[in-house]
Amino acid sequence: MKILNEVRVFAPATVANVAVGFDILGFAFHGPGDEVVLRRSTQAGLKITTITGTGDKKLPLEPERNTAGFAALGLLRHLGQEDLGLEMEIHKKMPFGSGLGSSAASAAAGVFAANTLLGSPLSKEELLPFAVAGEEIADGAYHADNVGPALLGGILFIRENKTLDVHKLPVPEELHVAVVYPHIEVLTKDARAVLSNQLELSQHIQQNGNLGALIIGLYENNYDLIGRALEDVIIEPQRAQLISGFADVKASAITQGALGASISGAGPSVFALCRGEATAKHVAQEMKSAFQKYGIMSDGYASPINTAGAIQM
Amino acid sequence: MKILNEVRVFAPATVANVAVGFDILGFAFHGPGDEVVLRRSTQAGLKITTITGTGDKKLPLEPERNTAGFAALGLLRHLGQEDLGLEMEIHKKMPFGSGLGSSAASAAAGVFAANTLLGSPLSKEELLPFAVAGEEIADGAYHADNVGPALLGGILFIRENKTLDVHKLPVPEELHVAVVYPHIEVLTKDARAVLSNQLELSQHIQQNGNLGALIIGLYENNYDLIGRALEDVIIEPQRAQLISGFADVKASAITQGALGASISGAGPSVFALCRGEATAKHVAQEMKSAFQKYGIMSDGYASPINTAGAIQM
Repeated sequence: MKILNEVRVFAPATVANVAVGFDILGFAFHGPGDEVVLRRSTQAGLKITTITGTGDKKLPLEPERNTAGFAALGLLRHLGQEDLGLEMEIHKKMPFGSGLGSSAASAAAGVFAANTLLGSPLSKEELLPFAVAGEEIADGAYHADNVGPALLGGILFIRENKTLDVHKLPVPEELHVAVVYPHIEVLTKDARAVLSNQLELSQHIQQNGNLGALIIGLYENNYDLIGRALEDVIIEPQRAQLISGFADVKASAITQGALGASISGAGPSVFALCRGEATAKHVAQEMKSAFQKYGIMSDGYASPINTAGAIQM
Repeated sequence: MKILNEVRVFAPATVANVAVGFDILGFAFHGPGDEVVLRRSTQAGLKITTITGTGDKKLPLEPERNTAGFAALGLLRHLGQEDLGLEMEIHKKMPFGSGLGSSAASAAAGVFAANTLLGSPLSKEELLPFAVAGEEIADGAYHADNVGPALLGGILFIRENKTLDVHKLPVPEELHVAVVYPHIEVLTKDARAVLSNQLELSQHIQQNGNLGALIIGLYENNYDLIGRALEDVIIEPQRAQLISGFADVKASAITQGALGASISGAGPSVFALCRGEATAKHVAQEMKSAFQKYGIMSDGYASPINTAGAIQM
């Protein structure tokens, strides 16, 4: 084990739900993400000294109330190291409320930084419960669909969040993603409030068929099947109304060759899966243009799936 | 193309739904099944001359109203051969109303016999629409979850029944099935009537997680994951009441080492997936004994997944 005095780590943005895996599917991509710096100090206990990049939003400096801090504390307690003197800096490099897993990236970075500083006593997989507990501080939900891929990378399937029965899915070589974050606000509480607790059995069957087909498509490198599978008949129709121009943005992605497109997490970001880098870049540009027609500025990203997850910088 | 004067074919029994794939998942197993004999005659058109093994139940001799006949006719029309002189014998070798796909086996055998007699102008996959249309005569539903595996063999996943977007899943080498058919009657209309058209979003998420996990388990040869995935939180709780002793039969399967167990199709048969032949045989015996405690006699089967589907005998 390599014991370090200071580490700087990065955890990437993520797309959760992925059209047909509400609460149980997510992937990481290359683009924005959060950085955490952790260094040893002579004063006992974990202190958060600096948080940058939060804009108007205030994040708590108390480690117990901060996603990155709480995730790190969970690991330190597990290792009997809660009295270790540590200073943490959090550099938020992605927008809040974007639907790109901002708090998940912080939680993943927090626990990964602590583990790395201590010489990586635990595997990344073993860090997951601490990362999920960290994000729960912000979200109120014990869900791994963002924080799982932010930590572990790749496309992650979660059979059950309660037990963190998680499985990495294969990533077809040419699979790329276009993501556009429009500069509008969708409150998570609104995104939750519009969802009905009930659905039709026929909707369940259709969504089940698409979820299974997406997984099969990933295993079989079947891009056409992935495309047919990316149709959310349950969540997207209820949340689309919260994102001005969504129908046109989605249509522009499909028209320009995306395999499929839907809302990233609770929105307002929109993602499209694509075959090949060129298509993804083009689709991201077209989705930005489509938002612009509604007077909405946006940030666009095009990248392969990020299979690394949290990394030391 | 080998043109024949007479063929005898067999199509196997099938288990549909498979706990977590209501309407979209089914597999074939070795055990009971239906036989169809088809021979050329000098009189124009298809005649059904004999139907055996139907017990009390009368099946229509008119090809248009018979599942095997209608499936064969569909193919003959497609090939412009509807005036070809043909005699069909149907030998039902599996019980009606068992939840083991009796009408599906007849439909698969009917169209496969016609194609084989004509020198196999179409692939098995190309026969599927005719087989599904044949079963629809009996069932009123255009569903491939029984007839698909009866024709094609293996474990079949159906993204969408309407378009027959079907996919064969991998079959782990040691995967075996125990099936018990209790001699009780469950009317399909009752099995349908007990099902609510609505479900909770939380049930959908849980079932989605299990369906995805089952598919991943099949691809990864992960028997433990297959076991965890075989938990139906939507259909089985509603239908279990129709099968006397179901809870004890299922519990006996799990206790004796099955990966999981649930209702086959609309019931009353019960299936259990097992790792290894010995476990499957033992589980089948224990499930029979459990039904016997309720005074119910039953037939038991233990076999690997039948990957062949319909075959020429």
